[in-house]
Parts: sequence; C-alpha cells; structure tokens
Amino acid sequence: MPFTIAQIADAIGAKAEGDTALAVTAVAEPADARSDQLAMATNPKYTKDLSEGQAQAAVLWADADWRDLGLKAAILPQRPRFAMAGLTRMMDPGQGFGSGIHPSAVIDPTAQVHPDATVGPNTVIGPRATIAEGAVIGPLCFIGADVVLGPNAYLREHVSIGARVRIGANFIGQPGARIGGDGFSFVTPEPSGAEAVRETLGDQGATDAQSYARIHSLGAVRIGDDVEIGASTTIDNGTVRDTVIGAGTKIDNLTQIGHNVVIGRDCLICAQSGIAGSTTLGNNVVLGGQTGITDNIFVGDRVIAGGGSKVLTNIPAGRVVLGYPATKMDTQIEAYKALRRLPRLMRDVQTLQKAVFKPGSND
Amino acid sequence: MPFTIAQIADAIGAKAEGDTALAVTAVAEPADARSDQLAMATNPKYTKDLSEGQAQAAVLWADADWRDLGLKAAILPQRPRFAMAGLTRMMDPGQGFGSGIHPSAVIDPTAQVHPDATVGPNTVIGPRATIAEGAVIGPLCFIGADVVLGPNAYLREHVSIGARVRIGANFIGQPGARIGGDGFSFVTPEPSGAEAVRETLGDQGATDAQSYARIHSLGAVRIGDDVEIGASTTIDNGTVRDTVIGAGTKIDNLTQIGHNVVIGRDCLICAQSGIAGSTTLGNNVVLGGQTGITDNIFVGDRVIAGGGSKVLTNIPAGRVVLGYPATKMDTQIEAYKALRRLPRLMRDVQTLQKAVFKPGSND
Amino acid sequence: MPFTIAQIADAIGAKAEGDTALAVTAVAEPADARSDQLAMATNPKYTKDLSEGQAQAAVLWADADWRDLGLKAAILPQRPRFAMAGLTRMMDPGQGFGSGIHPSAVIDPTAQVHPDATVGPNTVIGPRATIAEGAVIGPLCFIGADVVLGPNAYLREHVSIGARVRIGANFIGQPGARIGGDGFSFVTPEPSGAEAVRETLGDQGATDAQSYARIHSLGAVRIGDDVEIGASTTIDNGTVRDTVIGAGTKIDNLTQIGHNVVIGRDCLICAQSGIAGSTTLGNNVVLGGQTGITDNIFVGDRVIAGGGSKVLTNIPAGRVVLGYPATKMDTQIEAYKALRRLPRLMRDVQTLQKAVFKPGSND
Repeated sequence: MPFTIAQIADAIGAKAEGDTALAVTAVAEPADARSDQLAMATNPKYTKDLSEGQAQAAVLWADADWRDLGLKAAILPQRPRFAMAGLTRMMDPGQGFGSGIHPSAVIDPTAQVHPDATVGPNTVIGPRATIAEGAVIGPLCFIGADVVLGPNAYLREHVSIGARVRIGANFIGQPGARIGGDGFSFVTPEPSGAEAVRETLGDQGATDAQSYARIHSLGAVRIGDDVEIGASTTIDNGTVRDTVIGAGTKIDNLTQIGHNVVIGRDCLICAQSGIAGSTTLGNNVVLGGQTGITDNIFVGDRVIAGGGSKVLTNIPAGRVVLGYPATKMDTQIEAYKALRRLPRLMRDVQTLQKAVFKPGSND
Repeated sequence: MPFTIAQIADAIGAKAEGDTALAVTAVAEPADARSDQLAMATNPKYTKDLSEGQAQAAVLWADADWRDLGLKAAILPQRPRFAMAGLTRMMDPGQGFGSGIHPSAVIDPTAQVHPDATVGPNTVIGPRATIAEGAVIGPLCFIGADVVLGPNAYLREHVSIGARVRIGANFIGQPGARIGGDGFSFVTPEPSGAEAVRETLGDQGATDAQSYARIHSLGAVRIGDDVEIGASTTIDNGTVRDTVIGAGTKIDNLTQIGHNVVIGRDCLICAQSGIAGSTTLGNNVVLGGQTGITDNIFVGDRVIAGGGSKVLTNIPAGRVVLGYPATKMDTQIEAYKALRRLPRLMRDVQTLQKAVFKPGSND
Repeated sequence: MPFTIAQIADAIGAKAEGDTALAVTAVAEPADARSDQLAMATNPKYTKDLSEGQAQAAVLWADADWRDLGLKAAILPQRPRFAMAGLTRMMDPGQGFGSGIHPSAVIDPTAQVHPDATVGPNTVIGPRATIAEGAVIGPLCFIGADVVLGPNAYLREHVSIGARVRIGANFIGQPGARIGGDGFSFVTPEPSGAEAVRETLGDQGATDAQSYARIHSLGAVRIGDDVEIGASTTIDNGTVRDTVIGAGTKIDNLTQIGHNVVIGRDCLICAQSGIAGSTTLGNNVVLGGQTGITDNIFVGDRVIAGGGSKVLTNIPAGRVVLGYPATKMDTQIEAYKALRRLPRLMRDVQTLQKAVFKPGSND
C-alpha cells in the first residue's frame, strides 16, 4: 500500500516539503527504516537514529530542518503526536479478517445481520441480535440474545457480548473483552460483618457467619458511540438499570467495571483499573493504570488519578489525585517525601527529648 | 412473564399490602418505572424518584407508608436487600441459551453428558468428562478431559475448565472464567536472587543470573457446591495436590487464585484480587477489590480486608485489615491521618530544635 | 505411567537408595500418598505427614535418613526444589488434547501447518500463518494472519495470537492468553490535562475537555524462545516497532504488557502485574504479584520488586524495591515501621512543645 508523501500530508492535514511525489510503503522507527519507509522522528532526540536508518522521508516536528537531516522529503506537523492518529489509521494493515459471513459461523435465524457485515469463523450470534452496517466481527466471538450493535463495529477475536447489551456506533472490542457478565452482588440473610465494618471502619461486631444469596442482574450494559474496550476487560450488567459507558470513552485491558457503574463521555481508563459497583464518573476523567475506585461514590468531571491510586471517597471535579488512599497529588507527593525523612525525624525528636527532659539539662 | 404482587411477595417471604392481584412484568428503578413495572424503592431516599415514575406497585421497606407514596400495592420486606435475592432470581430473563445439544458442539464420544443438559454452539467437551443433570453450558466453552461438573452447573460463554477439575453442584462460571491453567512455578538450578531477598528482606547477594526450569502442575482444581467464579478470573492447578475452593465461596472478575491455594467456605472475594501460591484462607473471609495476598501464608476465619490491601503476613481470625502492608484497619486509618499531618509536624520539630539548641533564643 | 525409582532418579539426576526397582504411578503429598505413589517430602517438616500416608518411596532432601522414615526407597536430590522440575515434567499427565488436526478446525488454505502438529477442535488459523513442528494447539484458539509460531509450541484452550506476531521455540500459552491486541494509545487535538499534569505533578491547568483520536498499532509482538504467557494475560502490539518479550521470560496470569514495552531475557513477572507503554526491562528482572510500572522508564538487570510495588521512576540494575512509590526495600521497610510509630511521635512532640513553649512550666 504505497502512498506518496503528498498524499499522506494531505490526509493528516500537515505541511509537506521536498520531493513530495516520493512513495513510501510503511512507517518505521528512524534507526530501523528502509529506504522505502517513512521514518517517525517527531522529536529532535531522534536525529542520530535517522542517520543510522535508510529513510529518505520522515515525519518530523513543525520547524525541523529536514535538508540538514539528509532527507529528500518531510512531513512537518504542528502537533506530531496528534498527526500519529491520522497517519497510523491510514497505514494500518489490519487483522485480515476477510469479508462476508464465514460458513462456520452459527447465526440464529432470528438475528438481523447487515448484508455488508463480516462475521468470522466459529462466531456465534444469538436470537434477535441486530448487527448494523459496516460491522467486522472477528473469529470465535459471541453476541448474545437481543444485543444491538451499532454501525461500523470492529470486534477482535474471542469477544463476548451478553444478552440485551446495546452498543452505539464505531465500537471497538479488543480480544477477549467480556461485556455483560452478571454483577457480583450477594447478600446474607442478616446484616454481615462486612456491612458492620462499613459503619464502624474496623469493627465487624458479633455477627454470625452466614452463606450468601445471589442477587441476579436484571439490567444489561449500554455503551455510547466511539467507545473502545480492552482485551480481557470485564463490564458487568446492572442490577435493575443498565451499567452505562458514555460516548467517546476508551477503556484499556484487564479493567473491571462493576454493576450499575455510570461512566461519562470521553474518559480514558488505563489498564487494570477497577471501578466498583454503583460508582459514577463524570466526563473527561483520566485514570492511570491499576487505579481502584470504591463502590457507591462520585468522581467529578476532569478528575485525573495517577497510576495505582485507590480512591475511597468522592472526588470533586477537576481534582488531580494520587496514592492509597488517594488525596490531592501535590499533598500526596509532599507526604511521600516527608515519610522518607521520618526515620531521621524520629531520631531528632529523641535528641530533643534528651535535651529537654534528661536531668541536669533543661527538664 | 407477568406476576401478581401476591405471587412475588409469597415467593420472597415478604408481606404485601393493597391490590395484591395487580400484575407486573418486570422490575425498574423508581424514576424509570412504567405503570406495569414494579419499582425497587427500598429506602426512603427514593420517595421523590417514585413520584417521577409511573409505578403502581413497589418494593419498599418494612414500615413504609405506601398509600402516602401514591401506590396501589406494595411489598414490605423486613430486610429489603435480602429480598432482592429472591425477587431478582424470579424476574431474571436469562441469557436465552436454549436447550439441548447444539449440533456444532464437539463432544468426545467418551464424555457423559446428562440427557437434560444444554450444550451451546461450538462448545468442546473432552474425553471422559461428566456433566450432571440440569447443566446449562453456554457457547464456545471448553471442558477438558476427565472433568466432573456437578448438577445444575451454569456456564456463560467462553468458559474454560482444564483436565481433571472437579466441581460440585450449582456452579456458576461467568464469561471467560479460566479454571485449571497451570501453576506459575519456576525454579533456578542454584538458589536465586529472589530467594535470597526473602531471607534478607532486601539483599539479593551475589547470586548469578540464571534461566528458569518449569515445575509442571500435576494437581488440578477442586471446587465445592454453590460456588461462582467471575469473568476472566484465573484459578491455577495445584502442583502435587489440588487447589481448593470451598463450598459457597463467590469470586468476582479478574481475580487470580494461585496454585495450591486453599479457600474455605462462604468467602467473598472481590474483583482483581490475587492470592499467591500455597496460601490458605479460612471460612467467611471477605476481600475487597484489588486485594493482594502473598504466598504461603494463613488468613483466618472471618478476616475482612479493605479494598487495595496488600497482605504480607499471616492474619489471625476475625481481624479487619487495610493498607499496604495491611495492618488492623483502625491502626491504618490513624496512620493515614498522621501521615497527612506529617509535613506540619516536621516544621514543628524544626521550631523546637531552634528553640532548644540555638544559643540564647526561642525563635 | 508407572516408573521405577531408579528411572526417576536417573531422569532428574539425583541419587536413589533402597529398593530402586520399586515402581510408582504418580506423585502425591506425603499424608495423601497411596502405597503405589511417590511422596513429595522434600523438607523435614513433612516427617509426620509421611507416617500418616502409605507411601513406600519418597523424594526427600540430600542427607535424609529414609530408613528411619519407614520407607523402602528414596530419592535424595541436592536441591529438592530444582528436582521438582524434572520430576513433574516426567509425571505430567497432560491435557489430553489428542493428535492431528481436528476436522472442526478452520485453517486458511494459505496457512502452513507442520504435518506433525496437533490442532484442536474449533480452532481458527488465519492466512499465511506458519506453525512449526511439534506444535500442540488446543481447542478454540485463534492464530492470526502471518503469525510465525516456532517449534514445540503448546497452546492451551482459548488462546489468541493477533496478526504478524512472531514467537520462538518452546512457547507455552495458558488458557485465554491474549497476544497482539492493539495498544492503548489516544491523543487529543490540543495538549490535554493529563499531559499538563505530567509536567506539573499536580496541576492540569486550563486545558479544554476534548475527545480522543486513536493511534493505531502498526507494530506487532515479537517473543523469544522458551517463553510462557499466563491465562488471561494481555500483550499489546507496538505502535511503529514491535513489543518485545525476551527469551526465557515467564509471565504469569492477568498481566498487562503495554505497547512498545521491551522485556529482557529470563525475567519472572508474577500475576496481575502491569507494565505501561514504552517501558524497558533488563534481563533477570523479578516482579512480585500486582506490581505496576509506569510508562517510558527503564528497569535495570536483576531488579527485584516486591509484591504490590508501584514503580514510578527508573530503577538501576540490581536494586531490590518495594512500596508505592517503590523505593529500596530496606528504606521502605524502615518507613513502614516509622509510620506505625508516627501517632506516638506526634504525642511526643506535643509534650515537647508544652515543655519548651508554655510559660512558667516544664510539663
């Protein structure tokens, strides 16, 4: 799939200079690039790497002196990181899932699959599911009863979508994403020790050991447009209403979204984060990897949580947090620094105590 | 599936009042409820929501004044949260997996599948596996050689159960649960740096870099009655004996249970927790989300660990813990509070030092 | 599969004594062992257990007095834990995946599958994939376009390997391992609040809320020889170059390896760890369970991180770390201890303040 430098620059809305009729077949790191490849060297630190590779053309930064770098042509975007979006979309070779419905797919006769959809080998589609135009559904997927899957869905292999889940346009599901499992909701006949601990912050009282009864999930999951869900990520059904993922939100791998959770628009949730049942996130929230958020709380718009944060209380809009328990990031960093000086502080206080209280001194 | 208020109240053992012949078709949140739906308003805080919805009947709390809420009928359970168990079981529409053995399933001729079992499309069942009565096995599952699966098992899509795993009655496996993978057990020819660190708590000594040899898992997994395993959760085979999950225990999504772990009865293990190899949990243990428990330790009966706890030492029965490393919850909360005041404490000590040690001054 | 004590000792390179012609059929824990089983009693603490079981032969430690333990024969390895590797490999009954290509497998006509390979039921193999000699590929796996899978690969059920992934010899993939999902890489048109926080460590400034554009993964994953990948673990494709896993490295369950990560040789990465994008690990690194490592950093050779560590900065070679944020293990342990004494320290400082600053008093 060769493209000329002019075609690429035009597609990503960036300026091109030099021999823009030069064609490239793929992109490469600067040091690895062959002469028919476009080097990604979006930062002056790659200058040396460029000279090690064979690239004749590169994506650089806005005011780069490409002639001085020995190139024949260059693309000079204003925000190189953003240019990567258009460029990589254009050059993506894809997974090669083919087209049409594979004869080994098992599709319920009551399902409605758009005629232009792709359905991979051994995929199973349940009763009354509807698959809109442009869908590419990979191999070995499962789409349950009454699922509604919007236009241009792209499902990698081994994805499962449970009954009654509704998903908007342009959905992407990574390998093994699990949407619409049952919520984890159990109850004891009498109040349990864990319920007592929530009240007392530490004392489970004299409650009896009990077995659990299961609360079934009657709700499902509702997902807006332009959402991506990561590999092995699990999103549970709501109990009475649906669990909700807002439009434009991206969720990384191995993340847990509990029952009844509501996530707003354009959130970015990094890998291995977990959001417990009935918690609500606003819009434009960013969670670093391995963040945990307890159940039944509110996290405001534009909150950013650093990696590994454990959020145990509501967070107001706009706050940046870190730590376990999560507090404002600058407070947390000050506390980390102080903690490292704590052993010395203890020795200082002992010295003071001797000076103040020891006989014949000051005490 | 319409039910009358009387039928529902009877099934869940609660008192009903008003027009108990009124029929409802589903349950709903109070504000969303249509006139043919039963509102879940188990707490006075939902009063306003009830008036926004159209429900004529609701599940309320024991002494609620349902007439005053504008309802025609009400169910008044003593413990509304517990009533949810019976009610949601009754109203669960299920996944629609159908019945009988789908022609695309691949079942080894030596496997014994009970005639009333359901086996979904493209599911694979291995040699000599036995599937008891009442089983519903979803699509794209794998059940390995010599597996024993007890009565009334319910497997969602994409579940895998490795060879020789034995599971009791009423098992539930969520999408993509992985039971019976091999344990993660490797050994170096000579003692490794990591082994030295366990002894010294910080010094790996002068050990050489080495490659790992694999210790195979000869054991399997043994699971009691009434166990549920979450989506994408992984339970590893034991090395010589079996890994054991006790009856009544519920394990949430994305949880790791290492080789040789023994978990007691009626434990509740929330999402993304991990229990490392050869650790033993007692009965009625509760682990909050993202709890980690190190290998080769004992956690006593009725221990409760708050979310995010990292347990590095044995915990006696009945203790409530929190933090990293996990300590008694009240101690931990006191330490968190003190840590936040630490920067001010440091300034106070500096002031004291000046006062005590600086010649001729108090400043 | 009965073996004599002599055969076993010979295979694992250990000394055998007593009636070495005695045959055993399996290994067992000392207390559970039947008379035809070989007890694993590699430590004097198992002496009592041995007397409770029926074993006539056991694997003991180097200078064990086996006659005194009532045995007829014994294997006496120098390093019993290492002997477990050879012994368990020899006695492993396997998963019973059979041999040959199952008729339900869907193999693209352009794929090259070695004639001696095993391919399980309902497995899907894509265009131009090449599967080398000795491969055993379990049921319901997916192997994408242009994948190269080296000799003697062993894939448990439900494994997925995306397009263009290249894997060396002797690979082991546990159930539901996900290799070659797309990287989690998104960018906003203008610099985002999260980008501002990285600069300021806490202040996201006045950036606007924005939607995300997707950066596609053009790279794949490249895996060396002798690598094992755990159940439900996810390894993402690189953006321009490949994500790399070095030879001999073992990765446990539910672990996240981000795009562009480079992991060296002979690393051991325990369950639920996560390594964020573009981070590099050296050789012989050991990560305890639930370790998190931030993006774009370097972790040197032979670093050991204790369970639950959150690594936020580069770590030099050979260091042993613990905590959140991870620091040297001994420093961290000292800080934990100090933190527990902090509430008392605060009271001590209050007493000092009264003594030093209160007028006319020493109390």
